[in-house]
Amino acid sequence: MNDGKSIAGLDLTGLRRSFHAHAETAFTELWTSVAIAAELRRLGWRVRTGREAADLSRVPALPGPDELARAAERARAWGADDDGLRAVRDGHTAVVADLDGGAPGPTTAVRVDIDALPLAESGDPSHAPAREGFASRSAEVMHACGHDGHIAVGLELARRLAGRGFPGRVRLLFQPAEEGGRGARAMLAAGAAEGVDRLYALHLGLGLPVGEVAAGTSGFFANAKLLAAFTGRPSHAAHSPEEGRNALLAAAQAALGLHALPRFAAADTRVNVGVLRAGTAPNIVAADAELRMELRATDGEVCDELERRARAVLDAAGAAHEVGVRVEQIGAATTARCDPAAVRAIAAAARDVPAVTRVLDDHRFGASDDATFLMRAVQDAGGEATYLVVGASSPAPHHSPGFDIDETCLAIAADVLERAVR
Amino acid sequence: MNDGKSIAGLDLTGLRRSFHAHAETAFTELWTSVAIAAELRRLGWRVRTGREAADLSRVPALPGPDELARAAERARAWGADDDGLRAVRDGHTAVVADLDGGAPGPTTAVRVDIDALPLAESGDPSHAPAREGFASRSAEVMHACGHDGHIAVGLELARRLAGRGFPGRVRLLFQPAEEGGRGARAMLAAGAAEGVDRLYALHLGLGLPVGEVAAGTSGFFANAKLLAAFTGRPSHAAHSPEEGRNALLAAAQAALGLHALPRFAAADTRVNVGVLRAGTAPNIVAADAELRMELRATDGEVCDELERRARAVLDAAGAAHEVGVRVEQIGAATTARCDPAAVRAIAAAARDVPAVTRVLDDHRFGASDDATFLMRAVQDAGGEATYLVVGASSPAPHHSPGFDIDETCLAIAADVLERAVR
Amino acid sequence: MNDGKSIAGLDLTGLRRSFHAHAETAFTELWTSVAIAAELRRLGWRVRTGREAADLSRVPALPGPDELARAAERARAWGADDDGLRAVRDGHTAVVADLDGGAPGPTTAVRVDIDALPLAESGDPSHAPAREGFASRSAEVMHACGHDGHIAVGLELARRLAGRGFPGRVRLLFQPAEEGGRGARAMLAAGAAEGVDRLYALHLGLGLPVGEVAAGTSGFFANAKLLAAFTGRPSHAAHSPEEGRNALLAAAQAALGLHALPRFAAADTRVNVGVLRAGTAPNIVAADAELRMELRATDGEVCDELERRARAVLDAAGAAHEVGVRVEQIGAATTARCDPAAVRAIAAAARDVPAVTRVLDDHRFGASDDATFLMRAVQDAGGEATYLVVGASSPAPHHSPGFDIDETCLAIAADVLERAVR
Amino acid sequence: MNDGKSIAGLDLTGLRRSFHAHAETAFTELWTSVAIAAELRRLGWRVRTGREAADLSRVPALPGPDELARAAERARAWGADDDGLRAVRDGHTAVVADLDGGAPGPTTAVRVDIDALPLAESGDPSHAPAREGFASRSAEVMHACGHDGHIAVGLELARRLAGRGFPGRVRLLFQPAEEGGRGARAMLAAGAAEGVDRLYALHLGLGLPVGEVAAGTSGFFANAKLLAAFTGRPSHAAHSPEEGRNALLAAAQAALGLHALPRFAAADTRVNVGVLRAGTAPNIVAADAELRMELRATDGEVCDELERRARAVLDAAGAAHEVGVRVEQIGAATTARCDPAAVRAIAAAARDVPAVTRVLDDHRFGASDDATFLMRAVQDAGGEATYLVVGASSPAPHHSPGFDIDETCLAIAADVLERAVR
Repeated sequence: MNDGKSIAGLDLTGLRRSFHAHAETAFTELWTSVAIAAELRRLGWRVRTGREAADLSRVPALPGPDELARAAERARAWGADDDGLRAVRDGHTAVVADLDGGAPGPTTAVRVDIDALPLAESGDPSHAPAREGFASRSAEVMHACGHDGHIAVGLELARRLAGRGFPGRVRLLFQPAEEGGRGARAMLAAGAAEGVDRLYALHLGLGLPVGEVAAGTSGFFANAKLLAAFTGRPSHAAHSPEEGRNALLAAAQAALGLHALPRFAAADTRVNVGVLRAGTAPNIVAADAELRMELRATDGEVCDELERRARAVLDAAGAAHEVGVRVEQIGAATTARCDPAAVRAIAAAARDVPAVTRVLDDHRFGASDDATFLMRAVQDAGGEATYLVVGASSPAPHHSPGFDIDETCLAIAADVLERAVR
Repeated sequence: MNDGKSIAGLDLTGLRRSFHAHAETAFTELWTSVAIAAELRRLGWRVRTGREAADLSRVPALPGPDELARAAERARAWGADDDGLRAVRDGHTAVVADLDGGAPGPTTAVRVDIDALPLAESGDPSHAPAREGFASRSAEVMHACGHDGHIAVGLELARRLAGRGFPGRVRLLFQPAEEGGRGARAMLAAGAAEGVDRLYALHLGLGLPVGEVAAGTSGFFANAKLLAAFTGRPSHAAHSPEEGRNALLAAAQAALGLHALPRFAAADTRVNVGVLRAGTAPNIVAADAELRMELRATDGEVCDELERRARAVLDAAGAAHEVGVRVEQIGAATTARCDPAAVRAIAAAARDVPAVTRVLDDHRFGASDDATFLMRAVQDAGGEATYLVVGASSPAPHHSPGFDIDETCLAIAADVLERAVR
Repeated sequence: MNDGKSIAGLDLTGLRRSFHAHAETAFTELWTSVAIAAELRRLGWRVRTGREAADLSRVPALPGPDELARAAERARAWGADDDGLRAVRDGHTAVVADLDGGAPGPTTAVRVDIDALPLAESGDPSHAPAREGFASRSAEVMHACGHDGHIAVGLELARRLAGRGFPGRVRLLFQPAEEGGRGARAMLAAGAAEGVDRLYALHLGLGLPVGEVAAGTSGFFANAKLLAAFTGRPSHAAHSPEEGRNALLAAAQAALGLHALPRFAAADTRVNVGVLRAGTAPNIVAADAELRMELRATDGEVCDELERRARAVLDAAGAAHEVGVRVEQIGAATTARCDPAAVRAIAAAARDVPAVTRVLDDHRFGASDDATFLMRAVQDAGGEATYLVVGASSPAPHHSPGFDIDETCLAIAADVLERAVR
Repeated sequence: MNDGKSIAGLDLTGLRRSFHAHAETAFTELWTSVAIAAELRRLGWRVRTGREAADLSRVPALPGPDELARAAERARAWGADDDGLRAVRDGHTAVVADLDGGAPGPTTAVRVDIDALPLAESGDPSHAPAREGFASRSAEVMHACGHDGHIAVGLELARRLAGRGFPGRVRLLFQPAEEGGRGARAMLAAGAAEGVDRLYALHLGLGLPVGEVAAGTSGFFANAKLLAAFTGRPSHAAHSPEEGRNALLAAAQAALGLHALPRFAAADTRVNVGVLRAGTAPNIVAADAELRMELRATDGEVCDELERRARAVLDAAGAAHEVGVRVEQIGAATTARCDPAAVRAIAAAARDVPAVTRVLDDHRFGASDDATFLMRAVQDAGGEATYLVVGASSPAPHHSPGFDIDETCLAIAADVLERAVR
């Protein structure tokens, strides 16, 4: 496997496999960011990293110093150089790269996300990364949403455009922390969308087979991610159970109550309490508990209403057990719409690619992506945006241990995007 | 503060404060064990450590290699020598020490426990360890049950007996992992109670003021500690929530159901789910969850019935969410009775100690201690046992962040035990 | 207000108000059924009632003898005659009426449902039935879904067709027990759909304003209604709580668990536990509990999967508390599609009605109706069906205490149907 | 079986069986009260009934007019005369009877309770009342706590004392509504304890075998019975689930939360939610729910603290679901102690009874009885009281469908009380 300097020699598949093996979660994509920036600089793009690429000052729930230190140690062990790490080691892992095509024309941005998920990868021989030896080298971290492929496509595009003229300018946005919904706004805050006339946000997979390309997407879920911290009082579970204030029970009750929030007729909704951590020992009444959850709705107002009700459930769970509750929004995404002109441009490009067997104008997403914040920013400034999906024939659902992509999708995605931006 | 070699120069209070500062949880009492063994050897006792002092082969839920490695690193940083660590580094932290008094007589054992709790210590200036600078140096670990004082009393007794004749033999049992209820049986399995005619198990505090000594104890809770692991199936929380099998919800439901187990008219009972850990990220349906809990009853059969019902609740929570459940007993204690002759011996000794203002024949314990297994083993072999309590005027309940002892209790405990064993 | 004989003199509005005031729930529509049949006979239609109109032999959860006796007493007090009551008093409240138009042509059926809901009606002066004095005379029973209007429209249609020639034959299906989803299949079992070439199922309201007519409907929820009975063991709550087996807690846990069933990406779903009854006295551990619930999905297979999971939750709740569980399906509806030809016929008729301001080809239903079973039966036999919606500008949601209709919708519905069947 | 007039001819066993068959719940003991009063008057006692015997003006949760009307109808069917019913038909079912012994001496009161429980009686042939034909004639109502025997003993005592001189005065207190804890205070409010120097409260059974008599009792539970009413908002469960505010879920969550209230080290406690009623139909979001529960503790302050916490749980359950909550105390009992002199008097009497095989000074009660309010009132006025238990060898626990008494206990109870009051 390759270190951060040597990805220069890798082809599309090699790139994808290298990033797959070096999976890193939100805001700890240190090796990933250093490798991307190095390659882009090698190709002659103007590269912004660190605080120039992302402003983390308002980002909630960042990884702590210990986690970042461990991530830096790991990145170093994987071959990241100290110079590169210096810029990113406190979590500024976004990379923005610009190239001028040398002829008049608009500024087109392509956004790819780069983070992996906290999920243990399948070791089953039926799972190609395990069988072929490029499974994640991080225990409990896995590229299970195709972002490894996104990075590879982004870098391939950088290579193809480098040194060849084209009208206008191209900006590549390598975004951290899409999972959790925090990276896009951090990049926006650093000015990453300024001057962009058209934005293409890419996703592989999403249920489409290889050969199919959706030039636009609908059905985005607005998303609110919450962290709830319960603070009770410990006590000896046998000597004085009544002296305790049980944060574990408050959290457990809240988890059940949140999942029992009503379905809405006005929009499709989702509720998931994905993390619960409470207590320290069986013989101590648990004094502390933490929940991490997300609420989604295909309508922004319904998402707001869901969040309001979720907060009522959380507060009430605290009140029932007489423990304190603090609720914080730690991530978000919004709904979005794709602009017809941008959709048409992608559709036309896709029809030109021989390996594309079917072009759709619209694909129902059924999930969230904080690329929607970038799309809205571009649209609010008078630009256009679309979210394109390139089929990947995944053998298992996104976010599951056996997720994988048919790697022939990578060239298709690069072909479509190259044609669209030229 | 002192390292593992230098406790030799400390008085009773100094000993207690040193062990308080170097708090270590069950089976990771590495610095503690090395320090105790070194001091006992210095005093001329015959010392057994490592596999000679405890047989861990049947002990459930031992700390893993990573945790032990971290504990060893910490112990080394605190000054433990490599020789000492070698014997204990895989969790064999018990110490058994024998001394022959040089005259005919019975074998008397004194048992003190040495482990701390996974609890963050109070930093409030009203809390003496914080104010005086001997608070725990381990984040989230605290001597909140007085075992630091137990160790100090045990070593003081070792000093007083060393080199002075007395009838019979004395054995000191420094037991790890009382919290969680696993250390006593591990020591029994290594033969620690063999040949013991009389056993004194010491506890400080338990609600008694300084000056009061209870020569016997009743109201022991039988105790079963369980670990339940739920294994579901992860899925993308928006794309395919129905594909997931939610281990977090199963665990949350089980926690509520366990606390709702009925009270019993036939015995006093306790239920506490003290730890719940589930899930990895807000946008993934949680595939794994773990509960750690304890069930107690003042009657052994009721404790068995409670455990039976708890397992029904756990299994059903899995069935409701279609996730797998595995339940394992990870600790236990039994009920016990104190022998009149042993109680009388302690009572007589206590009456001889000038600082003792009141001697009780019995104190209602209202908690559990796996010393009860040692007591039963001695009794089953024809010996006698009692569990004595030495008042400590604690300003806060056991197992709470502000727990402390009035250190004048230490000399009282040493005085009572010295008189009793001589 | 009018008794069962005197509705003959009422106009459309008077009919609706009379049925509104005499609200009766599923299979106890005794006064209603007698009144309908009497009026139809008066008009010269061939009328089937009792066992000829509905076969209840496989219908679950019918009202018991006591409830039927009380309903009969009430119907008698409201003026129903003994002859009429004899045919319907054991719950056979469906009415089927046929009329031959005297010229060749197809057989067209119109289905209207006749039952009210167990809901207390609003007494607020802003609620027209309360203000105008035609609110329900039954405590806790209310026409809150517009079926009172459906009956009135059905009878108005009967009047307009009586004695005037038209091509083919018309069959009016007055269906009981739509709420709960049992009446349609009971009528099917008695042959009510035999020989029908085209079926029009009518609903007022459903969110449309007066003047709008939807000629077809989509988005039907498949529906499974379940009754779950828990059987535990009573005991004295203080003397021997542990001897009890708590059916109330099992039911409460099941209710929460059912509402926490996952949302599905594959279909829109609904879960509602609408009734919970448990226990007899505060000082007795509750030995019996009953839940009534419904599960819905816009896809039949998802509905089946929801039901499968709901049964797992119910069984597990019993297992957790060691109480027996019996689950029975007490009602159902299926999904359905409307046939283009039938939709076109209604749309054409609606466009002819001056008061109609807008004609929709499709309205998204978002609920369930067991008319779908009748539609499927007609379609399976080669016929066509549609489910039309006539806007009613309701000031409050269906199934809520302030539900009402703008009564000008009644003539519109009668006009559309008359044109369609002629 | 006998009607209200004819119990005159029945012996002790016949009396008990007659009252057993005519079981009536709290404040609906109409037949029972009329029969008792008639017999006492026949015997020449001065009898107070109706408002003279109980003041219901502050009693919560009385039966409503419908329930009382049904009870009156039933009592009339069982033979109660209209004159008798007039005094009691609004729930004033207590009976107070006085007799002067004709010689100087103290006033001794004997309290027996008269109400049955809302419980379906066993029909099993192994259950004597079923086998012998004197099982309850009321469906779902049963004398499952021995009060039928208490009445019989009270009347037998009245017969034995009638017309024979004895020192002082005797007052018989036939108390309604002991179950639920409301009758005693209603009688106190009407002056029933005024002038009483000594009070004997009788209970049969409580785990003692026939032949054993406990002259005193300890371990009374203080008791608070609460009714909680939740008021939400109904909505159509498919059309607009989000518009509903679900009272059923609030009640279910509260029930689980209440049972999960912590055990207390400071006292033995009990929690039981015995009744939950919610909702009207599966397709309506339930707008109303009601819980009936009790909280008990062997210490009055702990009982108050339990009630405080229970109210927090109830309020929070409402807040979580945004439904209103109203909580009302509907019954109570207090702790009590027995006076040594009264205990000695009963013990001496019991030792004189040949059928008594063992006399205990104390029996641990482990339940609640609002006789404690009468005991406290007598003690506060300078008198003495005890609560005696006469063994009954019950084959099944109190409050269970198979509860019964060995009827030989009846004569023993009458013998002990007769000796004690003479």
